Amino acid sequence: MTRLAEGSATASDLAARYSGVRTETARLCDPLEVEDFGLQSMVCCSPVKWHLAHTSWFFETFVLRAALPGYRSPDPHYAHLFNSYYESIGNGSGRIYPRAQRDLLSRPTVREVQAYRQAVDRAVLDLLADRVDPGLAAILELGIHHEQQHQELILTDLKHAFFCNPLAPVYSTAPASASEPRPVATAPHFLEHPGGLVFVGHEGRDFAFDNEGPSHRVFLEPFEVAAFPVTNHEYAEFIADGGYERPELWLSAGWAKVQSEGWSAPLYWRSRAHGWEEFTLGGWVTLDPGACVCHVSYYEAEAFARWARRRLPTEAEWETAAKTSPAAGTMLESRQFHPRAVTEVAFLGGVWNWTQSAYAPYPGYRPPAGALGEYNGKFMCSQMVLRGGSCVTPRSHIRTTYRNFFYPEDRWQFSGIRLAGDA
Amino acid sequence: MTRLAEGSATASDLAARYSGVRTETARLCDPLEVEDFGLQSMVCCSPVKWHLAHTSWFFETFVLRAALPGYRSPDPHYAHLFNSYYESIGNGSGRIYPRAQRDLLSRPTVREVQAYRQAVDRAVLDLLADRVDPGLAAILELGIHHEQQHQELILTDLKHAFFCNPLAPVYSTAPASASEPRPVATAPHFLEHPGGLVFVGHEGRDFAFDNEGPSHRVFLEPFEVAAFPVTNHEYAEFIADGGYERPELWLSAGWAKVQSEGWSAPLYWRSRAHGWEEFTLGGWVTLDPGACVCHVSYYEAEAFARWARRRLPTEAEWETAAKTSPAAGTMLESRQFHPRAVTEVAFLGGVWNWTQSAYAPYPGYRPPAGALGEYNGKFMCSQMVLRGGSCVTPRSHIRTTYRNFFYPEDRWQFSGIRLAGDA
Amino acid sequence: MTRLAEGSATASDLAARYSGVRTETARLCDPLEVEDFGLQSMVCCSPVKWHLAHTSWFFETFVLRAALPGYRSPDPHYAHLFNSYYESIGNGSGRIYPRAQRDLLSRPTVREVQAYRQAVDRAVLDLLADRVDPGLAAILELGIHHEQQHQELILTDLKHAFFCNPLAPVYSTAPASASEPRPVATAPHFLEHPGGLVFVGHEGRDFAFDNEGPSHRVFLEPFEVAAFPVTNHEYAEFIADGGYERPELWLSAGWAKVQSEGWSAPLYWRSRAHGWEEFTLGGWVTLDPGACVCHVSYYEAEAFARWARRRLPTEAEWETAAKTSPAAGTMLESRQFHPRAVTEVAFLGGVWNWTQSAYAPYPGYRPPAGALGEYNGKFMCSQMVLRGGSCVTPRSHIRTTYRNFFYPEDRWQFSGIRLAGDA
Amino acid sequence: MTRLAEGSATASDLAARYSGVRTETARLCDPLEVEDFGLQSMVCCSPVKWHLAHTSWFFETFVLRAALPGYRSPDPHYAHLFNSYYESIGNGSGRIYPRAQRDLLSRPTVREVQAYRQAVDRAVLDLLADRVDPGLAAILELGIHHEQQHQELILTDLKHAFFCNPLAPVYSTAPASASEPRPVATAPHFLEHPGGLVFVGHEGRDFAFDNEGPSHRVFLEPFEVAAFPVTNHEYAEFIADGGYERPELWLSAGWAKVQSEGWSAPLYWRSRAHGWEEFTLGGWVTLDPGACVCHVSYYEAEAFARWARRRLPTEAEWETAAKTSPAAGTMLESRQFHPRAVTEVAFLGGVWNWTQSAYAPYPGYRPPAGALGEYNGKFMCSQMVLRGGSCVTPRSHIRTTYRNFFYPEDRWQFSGIRLAGDA
Repeated sequence: MTRLAEGSATASDLAARYSGVRTETARLCDPLEVEDFGLQSMVCCSPVKWHLAHTSWFFETFVLRAALPGYRSPDPHYAHLFNSYYESIGNGSGRIYPRAQRDLLSRPTVREVQAYRQAVDRAVLDLLADRVDPGLAAILELGIHHEQQHQELILTDLKHAFFCNPLAPVYSTAPASASEPRPVATAPHFLEHPGGLVFVGHEGRDFAFDNEGPSHRVFLEPFEVAAFPVTNHEYAEFIADGGYERPELWLSAGWAKVQSEGWSAPLYWRSRAHGWEEFTLGGWVTLDPGACVCHVSYYEAEAFARWARRRLPTEAEWETAAKTSPAAGTMLESRQFHPRAVTEVAFLGGVWNWTQSAYAPYPGYRPPAGALGEYNGKFMCSQMVLRGGSCVTPRSHIRTTYRNFFYPEDRWQFSGIRLAGDA
Repeated sequence: MTRLAEGSATASDLAARYSGVRTETARLCDPLEVEDFGLQSMVCCSPVKWHLAHTSWFFETFVLRAALPGYRSPDPHYAHLFNSYYESIGNGSGRIYPRAQRDLLSRPTVREVQAYRQAVDRAVLDLLADRVDPGLAAILELGIHHEQQHQELILTDLKHAFFCNPLAPVYSTAPASASEPRPVATAPHFLEHPGGLVFVGHEGRDFAFDNEGPSHRVFLEPFEVAAFPVTNHEYAEFIADGGYERPELWLSAGWAKVQSEGWSAPLYWRSRAHGWEEFTLGGWVTLDPGACVCHVSYYEAEAFARWARRRLPTEAEWETAAKTSPAAGTMLESRQFHPRAVTEVAFLGGVWNWTQSAYAPYPGYRPPAGALGEYNGKFMCSQMVLRGGSCVTPRSHIRTTYRNFFYPEDRWQFSGIRLAGDA
Repeated sequence: MTRLAEGSATASDLAARYSGVRTETARLCDPLEVEDFGLQSMVCCSPVKWHLAHTSWFFETFVLRAALPGYRSPDPHYAHLFNSYYESIGNGSGRIYPRAQRDLLSRPTVREVQAYRQAVDRAVLDLLADRVDPGLAAILELGIHHEQQHQELILTDLKHAFFCNPLAPVYSTAPASASEPRPVATAPHFLEHPGGLVFVGHEGRDFAFDNEGPSHRVFLEPFEVAAFPVTNHEYAEFIADGGYERPELWLSAGWAKVQSEGWSAPLYWRSRAHGWEEFTLGGWVTLDPGACVCHVSYYEAEAFARWARRRLPTEAEWETAAKTSPAAGTMLESRQFHPRAVTEVAFLGGVWNWTQSAYAPYPGYRPPAGALGEYNGKFMCSQMVLRGGSCVTPRSHIRTTYRNFFYPEDRWQFSGIRLAGDA
Repeated sequence: MTRLAEGSATASDLAARYSGVRTETARLCDPLEVEDFGLQSMVCCSPVKWHLAHTSWFFETFVLRAALPGYRSPDPHYAHLFNSYYESIGNGSGRIYPRAQRDLLSRPTVREVQAYRQAVDRAVLDLLADRVDPGLAAILELGIHHEQQHQELILTDLKHAFFCNPLAPVYSTAPASASEPRPVATAPHFLEHPGGLVFVGHEGRDFAFDNEGPSHRVFLEPFEVAAFPVTNHEYAEFIADGGYERPELWLSAGWAKVQSEGWSAPLYWRSRAHGWEEFTLGGWVTLDPGACVCHVSYYEAEAFARWARRRLPTEAEWETAAKTSPAAGTMLESRQFHPRAVTEVAFLGGVWNWTQSAYAPYPGYRPPAGALGEYNGKFMCSQMVLRGGSCVTPRSHIRTTYRNFFYPEDRWQFSGIRLAGDA
């Protein structure tokens, strides 16, 4: 949820941004066949169609039902089918539709879901034509950012599903791997910081999720953070040096995963006679040595850091460093759908950076009242914070204070590694 | 596999039957949305699209590749993707595509699979225009029966997937439950047989699967077999009498399943204030008391029989009784897609009858050489024989010697109960 | 359960046999440390202490409580703790103690269980001093045979638990593997039978379990059964010939098990530089090539038979052949605890012979009324029949009509292979 | 591991403390039957015998082998069997003995393990008679603290195993629940702290585990911490108020656990007509309303705090508050083996306090080189920190800087709740 961004948005501003985001989501689906909309390759993934419907359900539930007492959904079942995890939202059948079975919802069809989106859009835009009370504006703002989160998830979930298909469908023939050969970074480059008492967390009237605040003081020892994320070339050296065979490099739980899952490289790598290949949204390509490694778990990031005699940054360190250099690298707007070789310092874009910080509430954090209090707070356990966004994050969605979070074994996000150290 | 039906089929006969079966499969898909073709609700089920492709792969692999040395498939991956379980069939990637992930194959699309079917059809029909050597005819015949098996599976698998969707999609609005109210069968009616030495198994030149032979002698004690399958009304009495709460009625493994799965009625029943409802391919309907109970497991059939102080027939008893009365009840051609109330004695059609016989080779059985030897023989363990076909079995597919087989816990087939007893 | 063996046993006969069996059970525990009594290495195994208590519970429940209205158990909890699976037996807590947690019962201690056994023994012998009504005698007889079954299970379960311990404890230093080197059987030797109508099943007044009857007619085609079980040498040839790597030799479910469990030899074999070793109740020994292979699953037996271009016998064939040659080989009384090289034809003893028959009721079979009806009947599904007893079966326990049954994947029994074929 | 405590311990001091701790471990086993030493009721628990052997293995591996080149263990297998998780320690069989099968080690027997302990004790004491170089002293010190950790685990693991036995064995008849009735705490009492920059972590020359350092600065907002842990009475109110039925009180993962495990009270509570009972090492007792609640998971602690409109303390807050009030409540030396009603402020003893801090390295933390580096560091992921020790922690083992850690779902430790809030 968001702090109320009082007065900062006019109704027409909001309407324009709402329309823009909704259109962008639809545009992401242009390359898809109808059959692609229903794929769910892991329980933690959702079908594209479900993302399309769920984001609409979000506006319907928290905006339309709140503002329009007589509002009726196109289908009363949607309240049940497209609720993700809001236990506080009542529904006819008394429980949330099982996440693992989202791929069984062949109906509503893609066309029906698109009609659902349009019905919601009409109602929202009608509403915005009239008035914009601050509470409503705040929730709409939240819904827009929520939809952007799902834009990224549409791509990450689709990538995994396509990867499972031996036909290796191509989402986009954009020159994902066409970045010209470049010299592999020679020496790693670190940015030093003297530490001390710093402020961490979002402050001000712009939008931010509830979990980014309150802004608070943190004491840091002197530290350094890498100017660039770890490259594929560097990661391949880790592999070549027996990285996946040396238990002393791994957290205990990570080593257990290496063994039980047979991990020996990042999720989308495969070894061929001529070297490594990587699965991308443009299909299988030869690994670009200078590009950032991505699709590694926290365990792999942590093991790599140990091997490199460094460590991962804390989220406070990361944020402190990022504030000094808030440029953005490859993001969704590039329509590359893959990280490119990095040539200038940027903390935003490219790949998400695993931090060594467990996802926890900031001091003084209170989740909002009501169902929207479930947005972030109830996941503050057993997950690790990632920072910075990726090549499939919309530029307007990311901030240096933004906190993403996944389980330490998760690999299907565009997650990479930025090293840190004690200065 | 089949005994070679020498000379019995001319090329044009075969071509006509081939076309008819292929067309019927396509027709079964008429009511479907593109989205429905990809559903896989249990590992033991397959998407409709996969059935469409697999049956084509079967003709391609065993007929076209054998007969046409230069034959090329529309896509070389299909040999891998659409092989169900034939370990002897080599393929590029060295192993069979995982059954549990058939729903991840959004590509090839429905349209591409339909084109694949048409390409195979053209090649097969070209072949049949030329010549028909007996070996080839026999395999084509097998492929036709194989496709009919998958027609039934398309409907059973789809029914389960639709059942999982709270929207309860309707496959066919045919008056599945429109049978007028009829008096519930009063006294069960049993057909008596004096037993003795009988022949069991297929004999003669007509097509039969390899597992139906050799014909052999079996000694039977005097027995009786019910003229009609158990009705919904009778099964509801079993439930009302605590059938699912009395361990003494159940096989040990069945009772364990009742407890672990929370079974309290057949798979597709649900209890409402006004009584039982049943999910059908026409949606949810009020239970027809006079219709045959279906979608029960072997465990439930066996428990019901114990409760009724009867037993299930052996497959030898069933076949012996059925030969005396080979009429057929409701079958696929009725396009009812649901069993109706039975008013005359028929051993074929309606619901599959669980027998108390474990699926095992007949004396002298030898699987055919080569990959087709995997068709039946390698499943002869831990499954139970069902006899008689169902309301979704094509009439030309079933015989009194036909042996179907499923695991004792399986409930998603149109499986019902016919009682037997010692005379 | 047993057919009532009217008048055949006097009270003093019964008392003597009861005492003998109870003493033999105790004697089997002589080599054990207190710590060994609690081991449970698989859910399907039970701790020795549990076997000691359960067999006593059986006499207490079905004999003492029935005959002595005021009978009181040493501890009222025992009725709950030591009931194996009799759902009809009421107990305080309403459900059977979980099988998987039998190893958590450190109390009652070994000494307390021994005292329990003695208390039961005193009460039973007191009872037998007085009178012996036929019903009681029949149940006592059943209890004696039940205890013999558990004698074998004590040894098989203990063997598996010792096998799991890298220290490889030795149960008995009897010269299990000391059988002198013998020439490997040259040509397999088969006994031919012309088939025809035969009687199968127990008949007469001697004790037999309920599942051995009724005696009934079965028609057999001409067949042959091997004079000797398959030897270790022969089985090693199967392995050397790629037996565990060729899917075409295996039932589908068997091949799945080979892959998921990584099977590459019988349960207790290990490969060493100098050849195979086998774990025995005497510890690790060099494999005796002439001894019968044992600790193979049904799947392995079936695959071996296919490799050898034979098949397994049906239980009717086995029994018919065994009746002609009812000599016994190595049995429990030899105190070898391991099969030896076989030099003369014997169907009883040595290793249990897997048959190709699924465990099912004989025609006309009716389980006894009451809780004892659960003894055998409720397991008649998904298991395969084994015949003949083993080197750890008491001689007085086995018969040619005796039907043992285990799941096709089970390997921890002394189960071996006897081939058959069509004559 | 420990910072080297230079010169602080003389050889004779160490010898005395070593002997004292080893004797105390043995004494904890006095009430046990031989059968009790082998129990393992969950994979995360170990048999008492294994604890006895493992702690000896620790001294053998890190002290005796290091100091005595010719040292020979009583049995070379012990290095394999009793290594808990040190991947860096080579052993014959190449891998660590599976944790889940520790209960299968009936051999070595209890007597043999006791002999092993004595052999190790003799060798260690001989060593200490000679000399004490600082490195060796430091590792011995670590071994002593390691053994104390296992003293607590012996009791927690045994408690769970006894709980699983319907006979409810009694470890100690000490008057665990005999604390006289006391008035339930009326108003909660909170200690306020103004926050600011504080030092956290161990400093100085006394022993501490490696994970307690380095001492470092943390900035705290003003906060308050409860003077007393939550009582059973208070927790029962949470239950009575629907605590286990209201998803809004729970972390998402916690709510999933409530549902999948059917949690409705702390691990060892059961509801009886007359009220709650609690399983203790003294058997089942009536719940003492004034005693601290224990055996709750992090999820339950967190949900309780939300219900109470408070939160859990961070470990920095806890430590800061505890330093001001370092008195100790009930500890192992009381031989109560159960928390008692608390009447005076004490942060040590009684029950472990869950904190809201994920277990992570302190800034500047470096694990020691070599195998001992695996002691703590490799578990720094997905676990939560607990502070303060419990009624089964030895007094000399605990400190205000001590960091214990368990998974958020773990309940078998003596873990309780101390609330905190923003001041």
